[in-house]
Amino acid sequence: MGEPTKILLDESELPRQWYNLLADLPSPPPPVLHPGTKEPVGPDDLAPLFPKDLIAQEVTTERYVDIPEEVLEVYRLWRPSPLYRAHRLEKALGTPAKIFYKYEGVSPAGSHKPNTAVPQAYYNALAGVRRLTTETGAGQWGTALAFACSQFGLDCEVWQVRASYDQKPYRKAMIETFGGVVHPSPSDLTEAGRAVLAKDSESPGSLGIAISEAVEVAAGAPDTNYALGSVLNHVLLHQTVIGEEALAQFAKVGLTPDLIVGCTGGGSNFAGLAFPFLREKLSGRMDVAVRAVEPASCPSLTKGVYAYDFGDTAGMTPLMKMHTLGHDFVPDPIHAGGLRYHGMSPLLSHVYELGLFEAEARTQRECFEAGVRFARAEGIVPAPEPTHALASCIEEALRCKETGEEKVILTALCGHGHLDLAAYAAYLNDELVDHELAEHDVAEAVAALPSIPG
Amino acid sequence: MGEPTKILLDESELPRQWYNLLADLPSPPPPVLHPGTKEPVGPDDLAPLFPKDLIAQEVTTERYVDIPEEVLEVYRLWRPSPLYRAHRLEKALGTPAKIFYKYEGVSPAGSHKPNTAVPQAYYNALAGVRRLTTETGAGQWGTALAFACSQFGLDCEVWQVRASYDQKPYRKAMIETFGGVVHPSPSDLTEAGRAVLAKDSESPGSLGIAISEAVEVAAGAPDTNYALGSVLNHVLLHQTVIGEEALAQFAKVGLTPDLIVGCTGGGSNFAGLAFPFLREKLSGRMDVAVRAVEPASCPSLTKGVYAYDFGDTAGMTPLMKMHTLGHDFVPDPIHAGGLRYHGMSPLLSHVYELGLFEAEARTQRECFEAGVRFARAEGIVPAPEPTHALASCIEEALRCKETGEEKVILTALCGHGHLDLAAYAAYLNDELVDHELAEHDVAEAVAALPSIPG
Repeated sequence: MGEPTKILLDESELPRQWYNLLADLPSPPPPVLHPGTKEPVGPDDLAPLFPKDLIAQEVTTERYVDIPEEVLEVYRLWRPSPLYRAHRLEKALGTPAKIFYKYEGVSPAGSHKPNTAVPQAYYNALAGVRRLTTETGAGQWGTALAFACSQFGLDCEVWQVRASYDQKPYRKAMIETFGGVVHPSPSDLTEAGRAVLAKDSESPGSLGIAISEAVEVAAGAPDTNYALGSVLNHVLLHQTVIGEEALAQFAKVGLTPDLIVGCTGGGSNFAGLAFPFLREKLSGRMDVAVRAVEPASCPSLTKGVYAYDFGDTAGMTPLMKMHTLGHDFVPDPIHAGGLRYHGMSPLLSHVYELGLFEAEARTQRECFEAGVRFARAEGIVPAPEPTHALASCIEEALRCKETGEEKVILTALCGHGHLDLAAYAAYLNDELVDHELAEHDVAEAVAALPSIPG
Repeated sequence: MGEPTKILLDESELPRQWYNLLADLPSPPPPVLHPGTKEPVGPDDLAPLFPKDLIAQEVTTERYVDIPEEVLEVYRLWRPSPLYRAHRLEKALGTPAKIFYKYEGVSPAGSHKPNTAVPQAYYNALAGVRRLTTETGAGQWGTALAFACSQFGLDCEVWQVRASYDQKPYRKAMIETFGGVVHPSPSDLTEAGRAVLAKDSESPGSLGIAISEAVEVAAGAPDTNYALGSVLNHVLLHQTVIGEEALAQFAKVGLTPDLIVGCTGGGSNFAGLAFPFLREKLSGRMDVAVRAVEPASCPSLTKGVYAYDFGDTAGMTPLMKMHTLGHDFVPDPIHAGGLRYHGMSPLLSHVYELGLFEAEARTQRECFEAGVRFARAEGIVPAPEPTHALASCIEEALRCKETGEEKVILTALCGHGHLDLAAYAAYLNDELVDHELAEHDVAEAVAALPSIPG
């Protein structure tokens, strides 16, 4: 028996704290602005949507935040998640590179999303909230929140982007199995949804529109809060449990990664794995390159602008400085629904501006090719989202084959593709259409950004 | 932190041998007979379909069989599988019972099936075979074999029962992602399939028909063998890795189960968990009750007869003494496709006749009710097959609530239901139809059993 295939941690080794990268950055990110006054928002502005504990986590500059015991108890259903050494993929590629993947598909929703859904449901239940509303793209987040709500006795109502709702009926069934309720978005249940439908009754929807709908319902009901599955600081904070575990797992085999690769939509999976490693890098304890991979059809980091924009389509959210394609941008309905978001997390955008990681964009076809290659070697069918990172990893590993470099590569395998098999069928039947965004599309998309004084 | 949620084994603790219950039974099972001569079959009779190593395992009376290193290397992609303590389900039920589940859904196919698919592909590749054919019901076995073939460079061709092929299109996509080819059964590619279609062009198919098709193709091509996902001795042997791990995991927490509950179709998942525990029971080292749960629509153990019958519909296989509903029996197209088989494993049938376990039958609706209850508490959506065992477990745990008994219950959670969510949707929308088999249906089904002299 050679090196282990799975590097496991015991439940007693589950991290007890989330890590807050804000504490270690050389400068803070630009403030979040009120959409009306365009002044920095305070905790009170967020109170109609979020409980006080999450608002506190959104703005804290403490380096570590304790994970409540009630959250740890639910985490233990699947955490610590395994770190895999991809022995069989390396062999199939004939590469001297050592490829590792941190696998979040073992969670109830099959992705990294429950890492934040569980604490969000917990803090809301603690605050006496009865119902959470949210949006979902591919459906991973909606599933995660429905599961989390079932654990803490909350109702859960989900607006799912219609493109995904139609492509992935199993996601609705899974959300309902966990006790949640699902609406396709745009829906006629909200002002925001009706406005979109009035312009285009066949709208495929977008995360931005679905957010508007969920926020509108939460803002209008006293016992109801809103939950977001990515983008915000507290979401990224909760996801750092991934990277903390990975650090402990690498320590067990006496290695450190030379390169970390993750896919980015809103940025939470990527940040969750990368931030604890960036702490090590910033402190000089570790020399590691970090790479974000986004879809060519929705390339906020590589083709968007860094500017203040709304998080949603209707302009109801605070203004955040981020890499954005414009809040009106509706990306083509690609299969990686979790990456179809017009903006990038403001914190991650700031970290990108600080030069702490690189970014690249890839087309669907090369991503699914990597996904199939990975599945046949490793036995896990990846979700379409992490195939973006896998495509980059495989290219890097083949580069190492040329140079003979034994690079240690770590990738975030943030979910399985069991509910995305229709996409694999489309790829295998050569029916995938690729949508690469042209420069003029981007220019058009960002033309309507809100103007910020000063 | 209380008792652990997951009891894990290290890869170094992966069992190195499969266990053969035949070595410890007070009497051997009745011989398998040649369909023509009705004399006991010898190894040569099986050679057109199976490689010599598997034939040897089919008839061996050795207590332990070494697991080849090449098989262990693939097993390590997901094994040892976790043993879970269902803390949250216990709490939801308010029971003093301690419920454990051995979870096989972490495998590449999402079920226990790769435990035997991998060694079967390995031994066939070792023997120079180029292609394997097989049948599949729910699709779990076809997926497992396609994955296993991808690991050893074999082609894989799968006949899938049409009822499941139509209900579960994602399974086809998953088999194809692993590189396999899928045909709905009955198909017009074989004599056996054409004969069924001639009688009923809308036939929903059955495992018996699909076996006939796959066997026919394998028997007619020199470089092609056939692989079976349940029923046979060597399949049950390979699955004992489940029970051996569970024994080691219980030893870690200093407990032994009072009751083991598993679902039965062909019997391999149930036998895989139960046989190592039956060894302990037969030796007097452990006192444990064992219970098989089958679907009310296909109740071979509880309503079938114990008689010689064919394993397939066309009557091409050897005759095996087993609990059977008759090889012509086509069960209603329930969602637990993996349990839709007319017969029970001959070895397991013999063990049942020896009084070593009990059996009961349950309807779909109560099984899905248990599945949803389990999912909301534990976060795992179970495949429809193991919900049969869960329904029995939950009933038992509620009985313990009445009596105050702290019974230790172990159930085989043999797979996840990610590709069965249409069935959950049907249950949640109250669209499930239950099919309980009447006595006269059974009498009719077994009327045409072959006559055996003596």
